[in-house]
Amino acid sequence: MKKRVVLALGGNALQKNGEATAEAQKAVAVEVGELVAELAEKYEIIIAHGNGPQVGNILIHEETASTKEAPAMPLETAVAMSQGQIGYWLTQAINNAFSKRGKTIKVATVVSQVVVDKADVAFKNPTKPIGQFYTEKEAKKLATIRGWTVKEDAGRGWRRVVASPKPVDIVEKKAIIELVKSGVIVIAAGGGGIPVYRTRVLKRLKGVDAVIDKDFAAEKLAELVRADIFVSVTAVPNVYLNYGMSNEEAIGEVSVAEMGRLKRYGYFKAGSMLPKVEATIAFAKKGGVGIITDIENVGAALKGEAGTIVR
Amino acid sequence: MKKRVVLALGGNALQKNGEATAEAQKAVAVEVGELVAELAEKYEIIIAHGNGPQVGNILIHEETASTKEAPAMPLETAVAMSQGQIGYWLTQAINNAFSKRGKTIKVATVVSQVVVDKADVAFKNPTKPIGQFYTEKEAKKLATIRGWTVKEDAGRGWRRVVASPKPVDIVEKKAIIELVKSGVIVIAAGGGGIPVYRTRVLKRLKGVDAVIDKDFAAEKLAELVRADIFVSVTAVPNVYLNYGMSNEEAIGEVSVAEMGRLKRYGYFKAGSMLPKVEATIAFAKKGGVGIITDIENVGAALKGEAGTIVR
Repeated sequence: MKKRVVLALGGNALQKNGEATAEAQKAVAVEVGELVAELAEKYEIIIAHGNGPQVGNILIHEETASTKEAPAMPLETAVAMSQGQIGYWLTQAINNAFSKRGKTIKVATVVSQVVVDKADVAFKNPTKPIGQFYTEKEAKKLATIRGWTVKEDAGRGWRRVVASPKPVDIVEKKAIIELVKSGVIVIAAGGGGIPVYRTRVLKRLKGVDAVIDKDFAAEKLAELVRADIFVSVTAVPNVYLNYGMSNEEAIGEVSVAEMGRLKRYGYFKAGSMLPKVEATIAFAKKGGVGIITDIENVGAALKGEAGTIVR
Repeated sequence: MKKRVVLALGGNALQKNGEATAEAQKAVAVEVGELVAELAEKYEIIIAHGNGPQVGNILIHEETASTKEAPAMPLETAVAMSQGQIGYWLTQAINNAFSKRGKTIKVATVVSQVVVDKADVAFKNPTKPIGQFYTEKEAKKLATIRGWTVKEDAGRGWRRVVASPKPVDIVEKKAIIELVKSGVIVIAAGGGGIPVYRTRVLKRLKGVDAVIDKDFAAEKLAELVRADIFVSVTAVPNVYLNYGMSNEEAIGEVSVAEMGRLKRYGYFKAGSMLPKVEATIAFAKKGGVGIITDIENVGAALKGEAGTIVR
């Protein structure tokens, strides 16, 4: 039986050298398609992806050109839009990679709502900057009018910041599982998922402007579809200790306990490897294999021959 | 066994009185959710929807605020974005309508590519206006730079026009059928689908800037999922002869032959009822039942007690 693999692709990976046209991003999607077509010989593949730069651009367009007749969409709906956008590029590329090999395949992108807890501490301290830059005055005005939290962003100007709560559940999980069981390559939980919560009493789903980390959402997806392996695909072949320094050390195979120790020692940064490390640890703790590597090494890492592998 | 019903919802229907905020459109989606939850007692439901005003606004935002760093997405990708957007609102509303009734349900939106024929005559004569209005000078400049076809639009200014080719196939049909078989309420072929064609020699999928009529795409979806009934949900309870005139006559149950005759007599207008009439005729010719009615009368029409019903 084929092993089931969830690949978590970075949204940044689709924009090589910052090239953000649809054409440039589709060209990168073609590389992903090739990878998936090769892996699919031996593995069942499910894909989750980030959407940082894509949803950023959608928000910039929506906010900049918002009018009474054509009002801007909120962040949660913009995430849904980015799922359609990126999911389309990926499904098309995967279809084409298979037809290049004389094969047909079932591929589908499922628009995915990811449930978060409204009581998540993240909502008390929004940290994730999104959308365009403003002057301090504009930012503070928007904060008053729209109830935004705004912060100064590393000397580059003021931006809206939103919470980054933990994923609790995926609303579409049953449909996703049905597809996986039927041999469909599924793309789901794009951009960490459309953030929704359940209202307290009536338990209705309601969107909330937040950003769910794509590695945490992808790990949750991997658990729900009972994947054997979870791969966080990033820009480098391994996780490193002292990255870029003379005493740099690549991490290969490690135990959950060892990776946990390194994490506690503070080796991994919050805006960088930390969520990937935490996601792979979480997945390995449930009995699976968690891998962090780059797109070139995914195949070798799945065979245990490359990447950082947490068991 | 439950009868299988494809509902084709108009994109305009989500924007009551032209209210285009996410909040206003979500409120309309709640009504759709209620309808679906009621119908689901007796029928298997699959939903297709239009996206005219939604993709129009996305394009306006994308074009108006396009920069080198955050370039505008092309029409075909904007359709994918609108599928994520509207699909999200509808799945959430349907989930909530079921949980209101103490029931759980599987609902999923599948991002859908619809194949068109690059040799379709529609590409020789683009007729569908999209996006924002320009001055004649701007429009002609854009036509030169971007290869657009532009036309003067009824005295309101100049606009880009694109082809409206016929749908030939739905790329994601197998995944959609798997979901329907597993009892999932599927939302698919949104906005008529993301228009793609197969390249001549290599048969690769490639997006094309076009607009596929949502009723034709929904009818194709109804055929592919072997639906029993196809309902084009519109703003009026019936199709009328001489609509709004003193000799107005509502059409109730009619045969394919009779509806075909009325169509040939020129009773139905291209920008209005014609595609709905053609789609229901096409579906009825394949042995199904084609219905045209408004949201209030869908339930009664399915029982044969309201609407225009083509058998």
